[in-house]
Amino acid sequence: MSNENIARRGLMLVLSSPSGAGKTTLSRRLLDSDGKISLSVSATTRPMRPGEVHGRDYHFIGQEEFAAWIADGRFLEHASVFGNRYGTPRALVEASLNDGRDVLFDIDWQGTQQLKEKARDDLVSIFILPPSHEELERRLRARAQDSDDVVAGRMAKAADEISHWPEYDYVIVNTSLDKALADIQAILNAERLRRTRQTGISEFVSRLV
Amino acid sequence: MSNENIARRGLMLVLSSPSGAGKTTLSRRLLDSDGKISLSVSATTRPMRPGEVHGRDYHFIGQEEFAAWIADGRFLEHASVFGNRYGTPRALVEASLNDGRDVLFDIDWQGTQQLKEKARDDLVSIFILPPSHEELERRLRARAQDSDDVVAGRMAKAADEISHWPEYDYVIVNTSLDKALADIQAILNAERLRRTRQTGISEFVSRLV
Repeated sequence: MSNENIARRGLMLVLSSPSGAGKTTLSRRLLDSDGKISLSVSATTRPMRPGEVHGRDYHFIGQEEFAAWIADGRFLEHASVFGNRYGTPRALVEASLNDGRDVLFDIDWQGTQQLKEKARDDLVSIFILPPSHEELERRLRARAQDSDDVVAGRMAKAADEISHWPEYDYVIVNTSLDKALADIQAILNAERLRRTRQTGISEFVSRLV
Repeated sequence: MSNENIARRGLMLVLSSPSGAGKTTLSRRLLDSDGKISLSVSATTRPMRPGEVHGRDYHFIGQEEFAAWIADGRFLEHASVFGNRYGTPRALVEASLNDGRDVLFDIDWQGTQQLKEKARDDLVSIFILPPSHEELERRLRARAQDSDDVVAGRMAKAADEISHWPEYDYVIVNTSLDKALADIQAILNAERLRRTRQTGISEFVSRLV
């Protein structure tokens, strides 16, 4: 018998960062390397794009249905981006957690705050910081022809997101992608070993002594 | 800049387990493999043995001095074992934590309870369980000539210690020493990345944006 065979409740892992801190790459690499965590599938009112699959990429629903889901408390968090609405369906996440599977959320500080209110004990939140001001600016200057004004605007937006680091459980400085991924994996592995998540320990101990 | 260069407060890592669960071996391997954690040096009233060094193995002090230290609140925890007294001097641990160094404690549930009362935020506690009843009994039957009564007595003592697993932050089943060591190291690495321990993040962020 090992911890892997003991029943446990899944956890909700939140990664947040300003753009330019490597969060998207880290999320993808984590999903590729760890078989027990999957990305939360959101519901959205935006039209399906070619190649997208309903239920895999998003749950595509209408404006009225979206509003009804909010009214029924069926979202853990929701937001509007450029006129389209996005939300995390509570039932899908709950089913994963009950089944011992972890769910990854690639969301900003506002989404994180909403999740915290509704799922405090299941939530593990990580804020990812860039290694330096110079490196952040370099990453935000996506194209050589970007004007200084455009870059300054992105930097202001990044600074606003960064100001919310004190609301997270863990803070990782992304100096190297390999090291940052190892840090995220260590946090995930550790949180899986938390007594409160290992719902089968009590039964295991009863057969031990 | 990486997390390693950011000032942080050290943590107190407690490993507890019944005898026969591999705690002593795991403690030694952790100390050998991780350069940032060291074993707490206790004060004791028992006589120094050949080869022991004052300040390295123990702080050897007299009965009266020990009683005075208790009265002055200079111990984080203390206990009597076979008439000798053992205690953890608060000042030494505090100096390590302030310096960003972690301290390992190989103590039982009673010592852990005392540490919890005095140092809740600095404490990370792990309980190590044996993989099965059969394996626990095998490990407790140290010598072939041990009578069933002797083994049953050890098993009762182990069962008493095991009953305190719900008081710990993390629970690890020691199925393989390598896996259990990796689990402990993951917990240690994760806890080092906790926002609340990284006292230098605020200053780092102020230079970032």
